[in-house]
Amino acid sequence: MATTVLLILDLAGTFAFAVNGALTAVRATRLDIVGVVTLGMITALGGGTIRDLFLDSLPPATFLDWRYLAVAAVGGLVAFFGARHLERINGTINVLDAAGLSLFAITGALKAVALGFGPAQAVIVGTITGVGGGTLRDVLVRQVPSVLTGGLYAIPALIGATAVVVAGLLDASGPVTAVGAAVLCFVIRMLGVHFDVNAPFPPGSAEPRPPDD
Amino acid sequence: MATTVLLILDLAGTFAFAVNGALTAVRATRLDIVGVVTLGMITALGGGTIRDLFLDSLPPATFLDWRYLAVAAVGGLVAFFGARHLERINGTINVLDAAGLSLFAITGALKAVALGFGPAQAVIVGTITGVGGGTLRDVLVRQVPSVLTGGLYAIPALIGATAVVVAGLLDASGPVTAVGAAVLCFVIRMLGVHFDVNAPFPPGSAEPRPPDD
Amino acid sequence: MATTVLLILDLAGTFAFAVNGALTAVRATRLDIVGVVTLGMITALGGGTIRDLFLDSLPPATFLDWRYLAVAAVGGLVAFFGARHLERINGTINVLDAAGLSLFAITGALKAVALGFGPAQAVIVGTITGVGGGTLRDVLVRQVPSVLTGGLYAIPALIGATAVVVAGLLDASGPVTAVGAAVLCFVIRMLGVHFDVNAPFPPGSAEPRPPDD
Repeated sequence: MATTVLLILDLAGTFAFAVNGALTAVRATRLDIVGVVTLGMITALGGGTIRDLFLDSLPPATFLDWRYLAVAAVGGLVAFFGARHLERINGTINVLDAAGLSLFAITGALKAVALGFGPAQAVIVGTITGVGGGTLRDVLVRQVPSVLTGGLYAIPALIGATAVVVAGLLDASGPVTAVGAAVLCFVIRMLGVHFDVNAPFPPGSAEPRPPDD
Repeated sequence: MATTVLLILDLAGTFAFAVNGALTAVRATRLDIVGVVTLGMITALGGGTIRDLFLDSLPPATFLDWRYLAVAAVGGLVAFFGARHLERINGTINVLDAAGLSLFAITGALKAVALGFGPAQAVIVGTITGVGGGTLRDVLVRQVPSVLTGGLYAIPALIGATAVVVAGLLDASGPVTAVGAAVLCFVIRMLGVHFDVNAPFPPGSAEPRPPDD
Repeated sequence: MATTVLLILDLAGTFAFAVNGALTAVRATRLDIVGVVTLGMITALGGGTIRDLFLDSLPPATFLDWRYLAVAAVGGLVAFFGARHLERINGTINVLDAAGLSLFAITGALKAVALGFGPAQAVIVGTITGVGGGTLRDVLVRQVPSVLTGGLYAIPALIGATAVVVAGLLDASGPVTAVGAAVLCFVIRMLGVHFDVNAPFPPGSAEPRPPDD
């Protein structure tokens, strides 16, 4: 039961990230169909691959299980053929991205706990699972990863992963807690987008400006 | 016998990629001897390292076996000292690159099959082995990986890896099949270069133009 | 005893690299607190993570041991809050960087030897441990890794790692040798900085100029 919920959440996050990653990549640089689908798949599967590297759980689960590969590839193809329409739906990218971030942060942290890692490691791995795929994508399309430059992105993932890990320490883990922690992360992320909240910049640095190009 | 053929193909691909990777790197940015040789070695050994990460076959074979390290280092040094002459030989880079791509796609897929992975995983790993080293190189010299932006590059590798995997499913594997699949990949790649074939771009996007700088 | 010395050297290198990596990142692009601390931690822990990947020693030691995580995070925070003051101390970045490079090259090579790898592999892994974290940082802030473009950076690490590996082959390993090899690497690196020594550029290439922007 709990496993099925985790799997469904994880596949939903995979699809959301594949569509979102492919759309972001299309906007950043000129890509052909191979590039769009590949970047969708890397965004969707990259976080889980880094997670399994850190947890010594190779080969990566997302690579062994055809469902992840298929869902990620379909997401990339949807973005390729529907890019013009999807971009018009205002906020689509942000919502899909927040969904993927939330789901991966929670499932990543839960996998670390299930494998016996400590709480600090579980929180770190959850956060990396959430932000890792998008970071790989940004590096490949030659952008400074957005997670490093502003906005609330890693912090909601950190809070969601912490919530689910603390719940586990308090013997309150289960599907409800997992979904609750994902919703918490999602809401904080979307509030951050809506109100344009930033994490603090170094003391004495200039006012926020657009990232360097 | 089959093992010896595989090893020779793999070392030939390693040398081709090391020379090619170092030459490409020299053209992209200013590098010293450490940079040229390192990028030649990363181009030559990076695909196999990613392959062994996905196949849970660490430490990477290319790192444990001094022959790969030596062949890759020699290839990088050849490119360093001969860059001026090699660049004049028109098409050298493309031919070496197609050779490395073909050989790695086939040997990568065969390694996955030999370790008991499924056909889909073997095809994916073969393709990653072929394109992985050049992708790492492009990221390090700050270019959008050429595999993502146009030309037929991943697709020949995908076809070659599929051919050798399907042959294995039909009990027709062996040195002849392996070499045949590599030649298939090589020919498709070179036809793509010669006739300037591109994979499809997103519907509605502008006509092909040079990659962004 | 030897283990304690190794641990202390390793933690000192981690702190030096975290402060240095975060300061370098702040100068290269605009980052928020998440970005500064993350890049400090990646600079500090990235080399050891790549080392443990190559040595098949996953999960990475730097990830399992809270002391590395804590020291790296504190180093990143020190850089975040003290960036203005630290940058004024002329040469701070270079000295910290040389310290981290030297300590990691030696401890990386010693770990490979302790796990039974050959001398060539130990030297390569030591060098990668020294230069890996800074390379990851440079890629993330969208710079060509400085190790590839000039200055003496990989070469002192290579010499230090070779010294400690050769000492081991001559049955002369121990804390004194380890510290001696680290000092050797540090001195060569600082002499290279002071006298602006470069590794050779490709024959026929133009005179040194600043890296491309």
